[in-house]
Amino acid sequence: MIWPGKEKSKEEKEKETSPLPAKNFSTGPEDLLAYGFDSSGRTGRPSAVAWPQSADEVAKVLKHARENGMKVVPRGAGTGMSGGAVPVASQAGISSSLLVLSMERMNRLLDIDSGNLTVTVEPGMINGRLQRELSVYGLFYPPDPTSMEFCTLGGNVAENAGGPRALKYGVTADYILELEAVLPSGEIIKTGAGTRKSVVGYNLAKLLTGSEGTLAVITKIKLKVLPIPQEIITLLAVFDSAESAGHAVSSIIAGGTIPRTLEIMDRASISAVERYSPTGLPHNAGALLLIELDGHPNTIRDEAGKIVDVCSKLDAEVTMAEDEFAKDALWKARRSLSPALYNVCPRKLSEDIVVPPSRIPEMLASISNISGKHGVPMAAFGHAGDGNLHVNILPEDLSQGASNITALLTDLFARTLELGGSISGEHGIGLTKKDYIGMEISPAVMELMRGIKRTFDPEGLLNPGKIFPKEP
Amino acid sequence: MIWPGKEKSKEEKEKETSPLPAKNFSTGPEDLLAYGFDSSGRTGRPSAVAWPQSADEVAKVLKHARENGMKVVPRGAGTGMSGGAVPVASQAGISSSLLVLSMERMNRLLDIDSGNLTVTVEPGMINGRLQRELSVYGLFYPPDPTSMEFCTLGGNVAENAGGPRALKYGVTADYILELEAVLPSGEIIKTGAGTRKSVVGYNLAKLLTGSEGTLAVITKIKLKVLPIPQEIITLLAVFDSAESAGHAVSSIIAGGTIPRTLEIMDRASISAVERYSPTGLPHNAGALLLIELDGHPNTIRDEAGKIVDVCSKLDAEVTMAEDEFAKDALWKARRSLSPALYNVCPRKLSEDIVVPPSRIPEMLASISNISGKHGVPMAAFGHAGDGNLHVNILPEDLSQGASNITALLTDLFARTLELGGSISGEHGIGLTKKDYIGMEISPAVMELMRGIKRTFDPEGLLNPGKIFPKEP
Repeated sequence: MIWPGKEKSKEEKEKETSPLPAKNFSTGPEDLLAYGFDSSGRTGRPSAVAWPQSADEVAKVLKHARENGMKVVPRGAGTGMSGGAVPVASQAGISSSLLVLSMERMNRLLDIDSGNLTVTVEPGMINGRLQRELSVYGLFYPPDPTSMEFCTLGGNVAENAGGPRALKYGVTADYILELEAVLPSGEIIKTGAGTRKSVVGYNLAKLLTGSEGTLAVITKIKLKVLPIPQEIITLLAVFDSAESAGHAVSSIIAGGTIPRTLEIMDRASISAVERYSPTGLPHNAGALLLIELDGHPNTIRDEAGKIVDVCSKLDAEVTMAEDEFAKDALWKARRSLSPALYNVCPRKLSEDIVVPPSRIPEMLASISNISGKHGVPMAAFGHAGDGNLHVNILPEDLSQGASNITALLTDLFARTLELGGSISGEHGIGLTKKDYIGMEISPAVMELMRGIKRTFDPEGLLNPGKIFPKEP
Repeated sequence: MIWPGKEKSKEEKEKETSPLPAKNFSTGPEDLLAYGFDSSGRTGRPSAVAWPQSADEVAKVLKHARENGMKVVPRGAGTGMSGGAVPVASQAGISSSLLVLSMERMNRLLDIDSGNLTVTVEPGMINGRLQRELSVYGLFYPPDPTSMEFCTLGGNVAENAGGPRALKYGVTADYILELEAVLPSGEIIKTGAGTRKSVVGYNLAKLLTGSEGTLAVITKIKLKVLPIPQEIITLLAVFDSAESAGHAVSSIIAGGTIPRTLEIMDRASISAVERYSPTGLPHNAGALLLIELDGHPNTIRDEAGKIVDVCSKLDAEVTMAEDEFAKDALWKARRSLSPALYNVCPRKLSEDIVVPPSRIPEMLASISNISGKHGVPMAAFGHAGDGNLHVNILPEDLSQGASNITALLTDLFARTLELGGSISGEHGIGLTKKDYIGMEISPAVMELMRGIKRTFDPEGLLNPGKIFPKEP
């Protein structure tokens, strides 16, 4: 006769199946809900969430997932706009259960080396926190995604994040020196080098940057940093039309001045911000440019003069923010754009196209045409200086359904590529753009990318269903 | 009865087996000799040389090689220092015959887009020629390898070339936007994007950069360029010892000033230059720093003041080059270093280590110790600001043979890595460092690199025997 044992408590069961101490692993429904979405609006459902606290713990979680037939979805703070951190199975064509690997508790600042202008962090560290720590040493880290107060540096690496300052300073990949990462096999590797130069085999650190958690789990990041610029000038230029603002952008760049930021907001964006959180922007303007210059005081005063000339010739009114308070108000408006548009239209889609800056006027005109053709309101704002526009699509009601939106996006991306652009400047492909990636990437290149994926992750353990469209 | 045909002439035979018009293909012994070496001192022997004039012709040559069991060695101008362009079979562990694919006739400037600050070139274009063409538009391309008057941009991409200006402006990879390349299969691909930002799948353009011709043949290059700086200040600082100069380098960087260049020459380097081509350098100095600042006149005057203060505290004598003539004389001396040392010692080996700039004083002391330990003279010069030292090894006679040099290099690289450095800053691995790459790269990372190689080039058609050590 077999005596049935006492039924195991939930905690006991979890402990038995958990690769980590109980506080770092959960199958609780509230966690499964909270870690099922990111800022793309897409949702999924994991079977477990793990919060590793070291590279060894990451390796343990990967081993656990492999042994239990689970797939693993690495995650920073979930601020991504393309669904890269959303756990999906059926959309990935698999039936495995999913484990979300949240890196948020590996958030230490490991080293600031002001003598060599480098910094070493864990992936869960928040971008904005790093900025504050660096400022004490007179240093800064240029990439500044709009979500910088919330997003993690690991997520920034995974998506090769940009931000307004990318115009002058480049994107995340330009600051990556060395990465520690855990391979799907559980092996911990170091790649890149601690120095500003190194040509020793293929550059895997740059390859991992922007790979959206599909190749390896990043556990340590060594970054270049720069001395804080001496002074910043902030200008606001008010234009009658988006086209004039676009012409100003291309004239400024062609004139050889490279501002730190050169942001555009069109009329729809301005009015959304003013309704959401009034900051005194001129809401009858056709478009605004928010322009910042940094460097030596004399240099940037000269540069500001040139920019005022360019804008004035296009009938813009230019004002200079007189103090920190005025500067902050302008940036607050800029950073409110995404939530403000969400407030206008909770169903909004945020796109992320990029064209050569000289094509900005044409692209703005095309956005207006595409909006009219499909009968769906659109707003455009973003990093005009490097041609990166966040085109927001604002369907008014449910009748403007999925097939219409697909047709609109197809038109938008086709026009972007026609103008020599790219369908994602900084958000990545993730889930939301995988059906469109073939518009930009040829089958031969896609096959190389699939080969690289197989090299790193032969069993497809990491982030299933992202970047790659269904195999033909 | 069979009548023997007239024996075929050499030209007829060549034509029959040539994938290209006769003028673009040769099996002549003088060509086989001329294309058997590069600037590393290593030599090999190809069976044929091809000079394609288009991506289609590259594809034809690759097809011809595949069909004839040949391997292909892509080549720019042969200025590489690590043997990347040397055709070797037995050292690669193969018995195939080798075809050198010289890209020098694909040398057109295809487009200067001053509105978007980009330029598109064919790979055979000489770096220095691009600089002159750009200067007409008020633009410049920062990477400036010392061989810039001879080296090709394709070679620069293959090796991820740097140069003195890399300190402020970064290396070739930082300027790559989009590449066209021919895969070993013959397929022509485009990768990267024409814009400054793009996150659309894995970044294969950055992966090809620095891949030393082992993955694909680059046939078109789109680069970022920058407006020419308004003004340049050139300083010469004379130190009593290499250690003091090293301390100055780390103090300048730690002080938050990033010069355009910060070059060091030690005593042995100075004396070699003065014997080879006297330029009036102070030949009893312990070391020199050649420092350039660029930008707005006021900014760089302030920066120069700070640098003079740092150097003076270390008892250096600092002079400013008064005019273009004086600047050119200093740079002529700097660029003569490699030929001058070759003149001193035709058997010289040029190494290319890099350490964090704060470790330069320790590295210079170690170089001196290693030279003493092995009884082989050494000279050190190079891009001290980013920690990249060209350590020249100058064996005095044949008794200082291969095994001694191997032991010396092993000590040099071990110390470099101990100080947080990398064994190659800009020359690459090629042939000369493949036996040492395992000191820096772990077996797991090496296996990923081999996997990437197999993905691009499953039959091992391109540049056999480079980068990878013999399989264990």
